Amino acid sequence: MTNWVYSFGCGETQSLDIDRDRLGGKGASLAEMARMGLPVPPGLTIISDVCQHFYVHAKGFPDGLKQEIEAGLRAIEAATGRQFGGAETPLLLSVRSGSRVSMPGMMDTVLNLGLNDETVKALAADTGDERFAWDSYRRFIQMYADVVLGLDQEFFEEILEDRMSELGYAYETQLSADELKDIVSEYEKLLDEELGESFPQDPCEQLWGAISAVFSSWTSARATAYRALHDIPFDWGTAVNIQAMVFGNLGNDSATGVAFTRNPSTGEKALYGEFLLNAQGEDVVAGIRTPQSITEAGRIASGAEKPSLEKLMPRAFSELVTVAARLERHYGDLQDMEFTIERGTLWMLQTRNGKRAAGAAMKIAMDMADEGLISRDEAIIRVDPATLDQMLHPTISPDFKANPVGSGLPASPGAVTGEIVFSAEEAISAHAEGRKVILVRTETSPEDIHGMTAAEGVLTTRGGMTSHAAVVARGMGVPCVTGAGNMRVDRFDNILHGVGGVLMHAGDLVTIDGSTGRVLKGAVPTQKPALSDDFQRLMGWADAARRMKVRTNADTPGDARTAREFGAEGIGLCRTEHMFFEGDRIKTMRRMILAEDEAGRRAALDQLLPMQRADFEEIFAIMHGLPVTIRLLDPPLHEFLPKNEEEREEVARALDMETSLLKQRVEALYEFNPMLGHRGCRLAISFPEIAEMQARAIFEAAVAAARLTGEAVVPEIMVPLVSLRSELEYVKGRIDGIAGTVMRESGMTLTYRVGTMIELPRAALRAHEIAEEAAFFSLGTNDLTQTTFGLSRDDAPGFLGAYQKKGILERDPFMSLDFDGVGELMKLATERGRMAKPDLQIGICGEHGGDPISIRFCETLALDYVSCSPFRVPTARLAAAQASIREREDPASGKAVATA
Amino acid sequence: MTNWVYSFGCGETQSLDIDRDRLGGKGASLAEMARMGLPVPPGLTIISDVCQHFYVHAKGFPDGLKQEIEAGLRAIEAATGRQFGGAETPLLLSVRSGSRVSMPGMMDTVLNLGLNDETVKALAADTGDERFAWDSYRRFIQMYADVVLGLDQEFFEEILEDRMSELGYAYETQLSADELKDIVSEYEKLLDEELGESFPQDPCEQLWGAISAVFSSWTSARATAYRALHDIPFDWGTAVNIQAMVFGNLGNDSATGVAFTRNPSTGEKALYGEFLLNAQGEDVVAGIRTPQSITEAGRIASGAEKPSLEKLMPRAFSELVTVAARLERHYGDLQDMEFTIERGTLWMLQTRNGKRAAGAAMKIAMDMADEGLISRDEAIIRVDPATLDQMLHPTISPDFKANPVGSGLPASPGAVTGEIVFSAEEAISAHAEGRKVILVRTETSPEDIHGMTAAEGVLTTRGGMTSHAAVVARGMGVPCVTGAGNMRVDRFDNILHGVGGVLMHAGDLVTIDGSTGRVLKGAVPTQKPALSDDFQRLMGWADAARRMKVRTNADTPGDARTAREFGAEGIGLCRTEHMFFEGDRIKTMRRMILAEDEAGRRAALDQLLPMQRADFEEIFAIMHGLPVTIRLLDPPLHEFLPKNEEEREEVARALDMETSLLKQRVEALYEFNPMLGHRGCRLAISFPEIAEMQARAIFEAAVAAARLTGEAVVPEIMVPLVSLRSELEYVKGRIDGIAGTVMRESGMTLTYRVGTMIELPRAALRAHEIAEEAAFFSLGTNDLTQTTFGLSRDDAPGFLGAYQKKGILERDPFMSLDFDGVGELMKLATERGRMAKPDLQIGICGEHGGDPISIRFCETLALDYVSCSPFRVPTARLAAAQASIREREDPASGKAVATA
Repeated sequence: MTNWVYSFGCGETQSLDIDRDRLGGKGASLAEMARMGLPVPPGLTIISDVCQHFYVHAKGFPDGLKQEIEAGLRAIEAATGRQFGGAETPLLLSVRSGSRVSMPGMMDTVLNLGLNDETVKALAADTGDERFAWDSYRRFIQMYADVVLGLDQEFFEEILEDRMSELGYAYETQLSADELKDIVSEYEKLLDEELGESFPQDPCEQLWGAISAVFSSWTSARATAYRALHDIPFDWGTAVNIQAMVFGNLGNDSATGVAFTRNPSTGEKALYGEFLLNAQGEDVVAGIRTPQSITEAGRIASGAEKPSLEKLMPRAFSELVTVAARLERHYGDLQDMEFTIERGTLWMLQTRNGKRAAGAAMKIAMDMADEGLISRDEAIIRVDPATLDQMLHPTISPDFKANPVGSGLPASPGAVTGEIVFSAEEAISAHAEGRKVILVRTETSPEDIHGMTAAEGVLTTRGGMTSHAAVVARGMGVPCVTGAGNMRVDRFDNILHGVGGVLMHAGDLVTIDGSTGRVLKGAVPTQKPALSDDFQRLMGWADAARRMKVRTNADTPGDARTAREFGAEGIGLCRTEHMFFEGDRIKTMRRMILAEDEAGRRAALDQLLPMQRADFEEIFAIMHGLPVTIRLLDPPLHEFLPKNEEEREEVARALDMETSLLKQRVEALYEFNPMLGHRGCRLAISFPEIAEMQARAIFEAAVAAARLTGEAVVPEIMVPLVSLRSELEYVKGRIDGIAGTVMRESGMTLTYRVGTMIELPRAALRAHEIAEEAAFFSLGTNDLTQTTFGLSRDDAPGFLGAYQKKGILERDPFMSLDFDGVGELMKLATERGRMAKPDLQIGICGEHGGDPISIRFCETLALDYVSCSPFRVPTARLAAAQASIREREDPASGKAVATA
Repeated sequence: MTNWVYSFGCGETQSLDIDRDRLGGKGASLAEMARMGLPVPPGLTIISDVCQHFYVHAKGFPDGLKQEIEAGLRAIEAATGRQFGGAETPLLLSVRSGSRVSMPGMMDTVLNLGLNDETVKALAADTGDERFAWDSYRRFIQMYADVVLGLDQEFFEEILEDRMSELGYAYETQLSADELKDIVSEYEKLLDEELGESFPQDPCEQLWGAISAVFSSWTSARATAYRALHDIPFDWGTAVNIQAMVFGNLGNDSATGVAFTRNPSTGEKALYGEFLLNAQGEDVVAGIRTPQSITEAGRIASGAEKPSLEKLMPRAFSELVTVAARLERHYGDLQDMEFTIERGTLWMLQTRNGKRAAGAAMKIAMDMADEGLISRDEAIIRVDPATLDQMLHPTISPDFKANPVGSGLPASPGAVTGEIVFSAEEAISAHAEGRKVILVRTETSPEDIHGMTAAEGVLTTRGGMTSHAAVVARGMGVPCVTGAGNMRVDRFDNILHGVGGVLMHAGDLVTIDGSTGRVLKGAVPTQKPALSDDFQRLMGWADAARRMKVRTNADTPGDARTAREFGAEGIGLCRTEHMFFEGDRIKTMRRMILAEDEAGRRAALDQLLPMQRADFEEIFAIMHGLPVTIRLLDPPLHEFLPKNEEEREEVARALDMETSLLKQRVEALYEFNPMLGHRGCRLAISFPEIAEMQARAIFEAAVAAARLTGEAVVPEIMVPLVSLRSELEYVKGRIDGIAGTVMRESGMTLTYRVGTMIELPRAALRAHEIAEEAAFFSLGTNDLTQTTFGLSRDDAPGFLGAYQKKGILERDPFMSLDFDGVGELMKLATERGRMAKPDLQIGICGEHGGDPISIRFCETLALDYVSCSPFRVPTARLAAAQASIREREDPASGKAVATA
């Protein structure tokens, strides 16, 4: 019985006894293919346990490893009829790393191992191709010196290039066997000089050098950084795969290539791939020669002239087609395969699940489910929810004659129009006032992130497809054009210069098309994208699979309509503050805020009532009986007042008020920390008349909408920023009073529910008390994150950059939930709330409600719904379905929060 | 066996079988005195269960009550030889309420119950004093009509006064029996007219009326409000005491009075009290006649001429002395007794623990412990820690010739000097800059509370000893003069007008003496109060009894010195930010903040280093080896920058910088929510060079102070505002680096400890992770309260008033810990921190560290120390001792936090 080394393709495939994690991805796939009887060059895998041993014992190897490897080599020799280091039919080997997950920074491959000054001659004799043998030897020395001995490739390239220019050659293929022999001599001399030792002629020494190099690469700087970033434990280690060489460069009946079982860009169900005739693996990567299409259909589609593999080697091709089909069926997923054809014989070198484009992922998953290859659940899991909202953004109407004022890269899809703003701060404050803006920057930095969230779109004049702006905007699903080099931002005068001398100022309307990279002046007609059948079907499957409902955060009838089209099952958060900024309302709002007494406030509120009622009526009508959660006025009142001198004078005139008095009133409302100030339910407690007006507007609108649609409206009124049970009790009392009045006045019985945001740590901790007054909880994770971390979302961008640079914080907790801190409070809130009231409805309405990782966490808490912005609704539907499936199959994957 | 009614003084004292809570305080003391064989008029107690029944059953009485009361009355009749309603020797009764705790708003007493048109004659015959009998009847009708029938006393007073002025009498005593009969007739006529029914002649009807009135008074508005305020459960209810009348108004061998077993003002061990000759209880309360001293010594001390009880009735006096001594010994505390002497015979009507002045409380407790009456633990418990710091404030030097510019009431003791500020905001910002100010207001309101905390003293021109300013300042231990009516605040020009036309402007120095009420212009020499021996001994006992250490929050050498004198055992919080405001340092600090790059910052920091080092050196030397916890720079940098245009220009000139550039830099540092912004350890992560400079100053100072004092200094460096373990890890790494450098440079081995504030909810939740990096935790309950409630301490005063008015919040959570919310996080932090590191040192440094209720809670968490401001140190020592004793005796009294 063996301990460390497992053979494959040498008769019995020993490595099947060992679990995949210890064999590594590559070793496991080779073993599996060998077991299936597919043509795999015989080989052995040194399992990852040896890597652990290597590091625990100061880079030493375990007892018995040597004997086991020798036994393995003898099996390969037996299977191939060749001898490792043999002077007649030498066995050559490839040595490759292979850890549990694919990881950059690991040693890749050493090919042709076993060649030396003797065996190279035997290889020449054996293959009848002296040039081939010496070229292989040259490549081997170069590769080995690089990855095992640590000598820079450039030295060798220099020798090679010098010799070729002396000879006047353009391609390496022009070098003769003798010329290659000379080059090998020069290589060996170089090694002597640089390392003070000669190239190892002993194949066993070569082999142990390569094995050590693989293990050593586990601690390369790049691998270490990658592990840290992805939480990969050090002690997983890597396996080593040692395999008999096969040659794709033994003439025009040999080839090497890569194939996908389906098209990874489009998802089309057809073998797809490229190959090079008479070449070794690294030639494909080097990109010196243009690869040829494997299939004839692929060749025609690409308009290429060089013949396809299908045409050139029909027998090997047909074998590849069969192998591909078997592998895809076996693994139940798109396969990405490496193969070599040696003198007409197909050999499989690797197979793994293939990466694919977002659209292709959906098509492949749906097709495979239709073909019965995978279950519907599996198809749902296979699609990344984050990619969905990219498919939902509007595009510019095709019949519109666009005359661009600039163009850049299509960094994040979607066409949007907004006012130009030149700073993140302006974007945030404009957003707070309900204005739609495009953030225009030379380039963006982490400081701009919250401005980007607040903007409809982002335009930069510098940076590529992977610039900060592009990466972040794609992540957010915000349309973005980057690197519009024919435009210029003048921050001094706040002007955007477009082509043809066009000038655009802050506040001017601009349209960007993140799908094409075009920039257009003014507003432009857009149209919604046609959603594919696959998309609609996937949503249907997701809806059937998920437990949590998906609602939307919608403040306007427009948002509500969009969200319903995207499948929202209600409104989880309707913020009322934006309504007070619209048109002339702000004037009345200011009159209310600046009133001397309650009577004055009530007079202004009476004017606001019909406007609020109309807002709610329209939203109720659109939602047609679906639940609508309306939050009472939340921001501090000073947010509605003029900020600068000029505005103050204007407002004073409009309100017929002394400017000095107005200034005094504005200053009296000043707060050091508005986030922790006079807002939320604190307003309703100081000025109950405001909450009463809002409650009246809601109830009267519910009566009207119910009469209009015939569907009973069950409004949910949400009291924000509660930390004490008594706060909710007080405000609920006022709301109940108004409900009674409206029912009497209308003669209609209303069902309604009063609940609260859980957005402060104290509310989470005292959830059992608060639940006694609440019909529902909505977890307000934005504010809960702010207070749990003591971190202002608006101010954090100024220093969180340093945090991420120094590795202190991995994820932005405003993007994805902090499971450990905020998550524990959410857990306490749900547990304690339900303890007090088992039928308590609990949802989430923070931005995290549209984030798949956070949605997975919400499923572990068994929330009733998540609520997110309209364009995120499909993402949330899919993510909620995945969460349901994963919670069923693997509850631990939701990252359970230990309450210690 | 009886269920509802228990007799005392009628042979067997039944009421001893029943617990004190159901008998009420008065009933219990009467039963106890009867059991001791003291002279108590026989009576019965209706237990408080009947009150519950009364409310549960719509003001009905339980079955059997009537029979039980009748049986009780028969026992009283038997004991007294009188008959209730009897025409010959009528039994008269007093009816008094008596709940578990003394409570305002309850019905007090109905005396002489049982008198009617018949029994009044019998009483006259029986006592041989017709005038007495009719006067008693008149009083009874008047009292009964008031408290039982609800008819206003004024009606009766009017009749009485009219008749007396007709007769030309000055005193009621001049009225003859016949004249009193006429008045009784007029009273009865009045009742007929006002109530439409005649005065009840049936003694039983009178009795049931009085019982109902007692129970009904349980829901009087005042009683209800009081219960709500003090969390007294409604269902406690009140008992009713019914007792045979004894008369202090049966001639000059009768008297009624109140006595204390010791002097409640000074604590002196001598009977103390007052009496009126020939009078009934309510005459003492009415204050028409001046009471006489009970003891001869008391008479002499007060310079009164009227003879003492000791002289007038030596036998009754000597009996009272004996009774008083027995009662004090029995109850082990100062007794407050009511007594009546009827024709030379002493009757005890009530005894209870007496209220006493703060200084007296200490003396009495110490004396009683010395006398062996109570244990030392009990003596410690008996002194209210909140009263201690009033004894510690400085007074004006007696040899200073004070020329007051105003005078008011001595509302809160202590003499202090500071700059005049006219608003709470100015007080707060001046305090933040380390300036000492006196807050001068016409009167204060809850909005001013945080300004009052920030001020050295408070002066108001309106309001009395119980005005808002007076009450709050006393609670805080802040010196205060209220109602300085000869001064005037002109808020328009910000001028304080003093007597003699003196004008004082904002920023001028003023001194107030809260012990005398004087206001003085400029600074005035003050001296420390001499601490009494009792004070010092009590502190010694407390130190022996307490488990928790007491440290101080001290930022300056002066604070450190004061605190050591008051017994501080270390510094729990040394804030470093104030140090940067001093003198010229602010200029260098600003240069550091405004530097373009790290090099510029380091240059300025190099200049700050020697100043910081000198600060720390002095503090270390003063603390002489005691632990000193120094917090790294905490506030956001913009707090150090100029706030207005004028200041900005000045600073720009001083720093040789363009004003526009400076303005730009200041604006760039602006934060929406500074409390949640770029501060605490976030500064150390963005600009590690600042933390490094501070660490170097600390270590170099520790080396120097150790060489100076010969005591090793073990500095504790505290990293503020940590929410992630990685933050602490990063900053600790920098500190450790500097420690190594300083040790190499100085050739001295330093022991030091790095720890963190736990002041954010996330830090409390992740305490087990953070503890792995921390040598100690300091619970920063100010910020923890802010973040747990989402409540800015600076902004809350604007709306917390409405909260308290509406009964939504009982205690200000910034004054006394919120056990339920903040307390649970503290509990989690200590449990989880110790789980990870059992020897983790944990203290508290928020303002709660000086609040007795909060200190009690800290003991339940077994914290290692509390830290508070220097003047609070004695309070904290005593409170910590009480907490230790109570935790031993009654762990539940600390209010265990349920983790649900």
